[in-house]
Amino acid sequence: MNGQKVEVGILGATGMVGQSFAKFLQGHPWFEITWLGASDRSAGKPLAEATNWRLDGAMPEALRAIQVEECKPGNAPRLVFSATDSSVATEIEQAFASAGHIVVSNSKNHRMEADVPLLIPEINAEHLKIVPLQQRKRGWSGMIVTNPNCATMVLAMALAPLKQFGISTVVATTMQAISGAGYPGVASMDINANVIPFIGGEEEKMQQETQKILGDFTGDAIRSLTAKVSAQCNRVPVVDGHMVAASFALDRKPAIEDVIQALTEFSSVPQQRKLPSAPPQAITYMPQQDRPQPRRDAERDNGMGTFVGRVRECPALGYKFIALQHNTIRGAAGAAVLNAELMYSEGLLD
Amino acid sequence: MNGQKVEVGILGATGMVGQSFAKFLQGHPWFEITWLGASDRSAGKPLAEATNWRLDGAMPEALRAIQVEECKPGNAPRLVFSATDSSVATEIEQAFASAGHIVVSNSKNHRMEADVPLLIPEINAEHLKIVPLQQRKRGWSGMIVTNPNCATMVLAMALAPLKQFGISTVVATTMQAISGAGYPGVASMDINANVIPFIGGEEEKMQQETQKILGDFTGDAIRSLTAKVSAQCNRVPVVDGHMVAASFALDRKPAIEDVIQALTEFSSVPQQRKLPSAPPQAITYMPQQDRPQPRRDAERDNGMGTFVGRVRECPALGYKFIALQHNTIRGAAGAAVLNAELMYSEGLLD
Amino acid sequence: MNGQKVEVGILGATGMVGQSFAKFLQGHPWFEITWLGASDRSAGKPLAEATNWRLDGAMPEALRAIQVEECKPGNAPRLVFSATDSSVATEIEQAFASAGHIVVSNSKNHRMEADVPLLIPEINAEHLKIVPLQQRKRGWSGMIVTNPNCATMVLAMALAPLKQFGISTVVATTMQAISGAGYPGVASMDINANVIPFIGGEEEKMQQETQKILGDFTGDAIRSLTAKVSAQCNRVPVVDGHMVAASFALDRKPAIEDVIQALTEFSSVPQQRKLPSAPPQAITYMPQQDRPQPRRDAERDNGMGTFVGRVRECPALGYKFIALQHNTIRGAAGAAVLNAELMYSEGLLD
Amino acid sequence: MNGQKVEVGILGATGMVGQSFAKFLQGHPWFEITWLGASDRSAGKPLAEATNWRLDGAMPEALRAIQVEECKPGNAPRLVFSATDSSVATEIEQAFASAGHIVVSNSKNHRMEADVPLLIPEINAEHLKIVPLQQRKRGWSGMIVTNPNCATMVLAMALAPLKQFGISTVVATTMQAISGAGYPGVASMDINANVIPFIGGEEEKMQQETQKILGDFTGDAIRSLTAKVSAQCNRVPVVDGHMVAASFALDRKPAIEDVIQALTEFSSVPQQRKLPSAPPQAITYMPQQDRPQPRRDAERDNGMGTFVGRVRECPALGYKFIALQHNTIRGAAGAAVLNAELMYSEGLLD
Repeated sequence: MNGQKVEVGILGATGMVGQSFAKFLQGHPWFEITWLGASDRSAGKPLAEATNWRLDGAMPEALRAIQVEECKPGNAPRLVFSATDSSVATEIEQAFASAGHIVVSNSKNHRMEADVPLLIPEINAEHLKIVPLQQRKRGWSGMIVTNPNCATMVLAMALAPLKQFGISTVVATTMQAISGAGYPGVASMDINANVIPFIGGEEEKMQQETQKILGDFTGDAIRSLTAKVSAQCNRVPVVDGHMVAASFALDRKPAIEDVIQALTEFSSVPQQRKLPSAPPQAITYMPQQDRPQPRRDAERDNGMGTFVGRVRECPALGYKFIALQHNTIRGAAGAAVLNAELMYSEGLLD
Repeated sequence: MNGQKVEVGILGATGMVGQSFAKFLQGHPWFEITWLGASDRSAGKPLAEATNWRLDGAMPEALRAIQVEECKPGNAPRLVFSATDSSVATEIEQAFASAGHIVVSNSKNHRMEADVPLLIPEINAEHLKIVPLQQRKRGWSGMIVTNPNCATMVLAMALAPLKQFGISTVVATTMQAISGAGYPGVASMDINANVIPFIGGEEEKMQQETQKILGDFTGDAIRSLTAKVSAQCNRVPVVDGHMVAASFALDRKPAIEDVIQALTEFSSVPQQRKLPSAPPQAITYMPQQDRPQPRRDAERDNGMGTFVGRVRECPALGYKFIALQHNTIRGAAGAAVLNAELMYSEGLLD
Repeated sequence: MNGQKVEVGILGATGMVGQSFAKFLQGHPWFEITWLGASDRSAGKPLAEATNWRLDGAMPEALRAIQVEECKPGNAPRLVFSATDSSVATEIEQAFASAGHIVVSNSKNHRMEADVPLLIPEINAEHLKIVPLQQRKRGWSGMIVTNPNCATMVLAMALAPLKQFGISTVVATTMQAISGAGYPGVASMDINANVIPFIGGEEEKMQQETQKILGDFTGDAIRSLTAKVSAQCNRVPVVDGHMVAASFALDRKPAIEDVIQALTEFSSVPQQRKLPSAPPQAITYMPQQDRPQPRRDAERDNGMGTFVGRVRECPALGYKFIALQHNTIRGAAGAAVLNAELMYSEGLLD
Repeated sequence: MNGQKVEVGILGATGMVGQSFAKFLQGHPWFEITWLGASDRSAGKPLAEATNWRLDGAMPEALRAIQVEECKPGNAPRLVFSATDSSVATEIEQAFASAGHIVVSNSKNHRMEADVPLLIPEINAEHLKIVPLQQRKRGWSGMIVTNPNCATMVLAMALAPLKQFGISTVVATTMQAISGAGYPGVASMDINANVIPFIGGEEEKMQQETQKILGDFTGDAIRSLTAKVSAQCNRVPVVDGHMVAASFALDRKPAIEDVIQALTEFSSVPQQRKLPSAPPQAITYMPQQDRPQPRRDAERDNGMGTFVGRVRECPALGYKFIALQHNTIRGAAGAAVLNAELMYSEGLLD
């Protein structure tokens, strides 16, 4: 870098996820936000005028005066993080990739396409090898790399260390925070002192994305894990932090202690390369009987940790546990930034 | 009755469950509370002095002046509802049964004993036939009849109509209301805007009790259902209403529509005999995609209903749904009263 | 009535307040909903299709099939309750009044007009005497009668019995429920485990409306009370029930006991005439040190009660108390219905 | 310090406030915890065994192995922070002061004694001059210095810059977080989706302490401010952060802009001496119409800030505003530590 940071842009900078990117990238050692894109309505205004800041703390000072532009390639730096709404993400992201930009996206639109990595650096760094195929097939000089849905992320991370034991069946039930729905998101009349047993499209995402993430790169394709995965998704009155209670079957039938050890010792590329946003441990196993808990634990490790507890026998499938992540950090902005860090460390941003 | 109501007593009248009995029995057409038992500390005082009323609304006027007695047989009427704490329930309930009382108990202590019915009138009315064995074996002129744990109750009721299809595996995750923990119960510092993924002993109860409830009476024993049942129990910041998200396998592989029909058409003894506390329908199937919800639905049918929604295919086990009940009514006091109503209708209180 | 109920319509039937009217009027002994008005968008559809039911319990069966019409006079019955949004209420309500309809409105638009009663039957039934002036001045055969803002209602009712002591200064701080903001209303990201110290326009309404409500009819005008009234309005994460903490000065300096007695003994037209929606006591004084509380008390008396507690000396102004009402019942739909009941009992609906 | 930190002890180290001290002092540049005192029950055990950690994040690693001792002078360092329960604080604190310890206490017991400073460094640093009188009168080589109640602290800090205008009357209503009640503190059944309009003893504390804090040191006594102060205290379902809505009269009748300017420009000893725990600005005035808010703002400035908003005219008393602080940091542990920092900077710890 020669002391210089990589300039990055944000597509969809004025929404909640865009704000999360802005907040998460404050003081980042490698990346510096120099460009902000949003809808026509916001274009031409400085960020401080273009959006109401919805997150805790104040809007990053350095960004207040940056003038928001339309989400069109041109002035944007090569690396852009996409926080665009799914209603427009397909078109915008493809335009940027086609114009040579590296689009690191949090949007759902391209996640399940065969030639697009659904990347979690701890799990499937080698899925990046599909990118040349993507570029060739689509005639792009740029690329699109995605991170998973925020509920998928919890489950995939917590299961990853157990892939070695042969995962055959997973039944997951989520208790998801309101911040996952953006702003204004969930009406307080719906969720105050209540549970909503439905989140549109979420169960399908968890079921499909988990299989793709845990799948293998075969040389010319990503082959999804064949495990059966079932998800039930619920909204609960919690601000940040998605909990996933899962029961699962493992072919190799390890002892409970071996499962805990596999979780505890799980380490991978981001830790080994000391990527700036990587948590010190990929997974933190909490031995207390009543942890993790979203309000008490989600913000640890700067919101980038994965917390697992209560690994024990399941009378139905063999094993069960509870897992937690901060949904707007590890499950969204932080996930994309870690992906970009991995790509940087691989030389993909050169 | 010849126009006269059956006199009933409450063991443990000053606790939260005791108060729930008092509230639920207000204006009951068959039963009238004439006796209240509690700890030594409360004995000798009128109820209005012996306890702080914790429930919504005021303490029933008719009970304010009743003098609380110690939990000892003697002055108590033949039929007593037990809301005693588990630390003392074994001794107290056995003393009453031995002295000829009919103990209809909400306590966990005797639920899993082989000669004690774990009764849900809609499901296993015939389990009452074990009572003569109980009396013979223990030399009691009275008896103990129990109702299940409040989280078990949701699951057992929602599964009961599906027993005909052969239930082989159940994976259930609960989201339980704070009222289930009594008073003071869960500290607000623990549950405000949080989830606690642990409720002591609850998972074991759900797993064992569900099997017993759905089991068959063989003529001289209750044979538990052989299905594998797994439970993960969580506390969420909801006042009343336990939600259970369940995935399950059915041997006969009915179509989804057949499962919904079985739930909708489920009817049994309480509806047929028009027991006073029975809900109009045993189970209410809610076709909306985001129902049932605890705050909006638990209080319907006077808190005695069972609400099921989102029956759909489960990629892992075949079927899944979400179910709800009011935990302190259908899951506690109301459950015991319905049991007593069934027993009354069978002539067991004569 | 000769056994026949008065037919009534609802203007703005599909919104949250309109739904509250529909729910509150279920089984009303005098009034029967036969007509529903809403925006063009809903017109022509049966209510069951025109709106998502947001309240607890189900949509009243009798209304499901009623075809919603546009908010225009013509087919509507003489008496209409107005739940129209303030953006359109002025025009719609005036059109109906002009066409001979009796508009009993919950909207803010006409409340502060000099010739429009801001009516609370317990307090200012005689303000109805301004109606002939309204009709003369505006050339209307119909009329508009309004009820106050939901936070004003709490304060005005709790102060009314003390008017005899000479109210000179009032400092009120509210803690208001989320249901007061309608649907979707307050975003859960804003109010979950939080307080929002601002509700647009609410403080001005409380300050002005309280003065008008407690004012006197002079024969040809309503003269507002000259007391200084200050309000600070806050939103808190409570579903239903507005709390008002008030300090106030009384010219005649009664003893605390006399203030409590005045509250307890307060009785007025609705109780004396036994209007169907009137609570048994106008005000319920709660002697416990920690009552009233919104979740535990707001629904008493079918949501029509006013609950006051903690009357005590205020070192600054002389007196202070805490007061509570159910904001969507006594503070909205129930208020309008009680107004209509008063008008019916006065022969104004003939 | 010659590079060495001042050793400090904590009285009542195992309770919630004690834990707050431990957390707040982590990495403190001047003070280092080397001694922990608690009840007999805990004495002899390492802290990790003696207490359940209730705060977010983990127990500070450096303290886990420190062996808890009884709360008796002897081994304790000269400077001790007192987080003892009020039931025992009088005796314990006096024993330590008598034995030569400097007791910087968060307990209420000595706050209102005439010879004990009720210290807020920004407001009344000169109240420390009463200490020699305290020592003389009581024959102590040590001393007791106290900080105010957590709700008082908000009000006193927000009013302090306005003392110059002559404060004559204050009517304050609080909305207080659950963490203020310690652990287990408020039962969730009491506060979930509810407001409790009572906190034992809190109103009296706010009324008296505010007067003492804002009073003047006359050379041989602290003369309380003569302003009338009235408080109404409410618990709301918020985790951290006490809100105070206040109306007040100012003799000199400054313009609203002058009040805002006085708040904004307020600066005092802690800022001038750059005490380590002092926030950058004593008071942060928030110009947005709906701020401050507890969940979004209380944690700014490491929880040491005071946030004021909505300064505007009050029709009753002249002025009103809303104020916020983090109750367990600025309102408890942080307050005591800042007091000790002031004392250190004055040479009182030598």
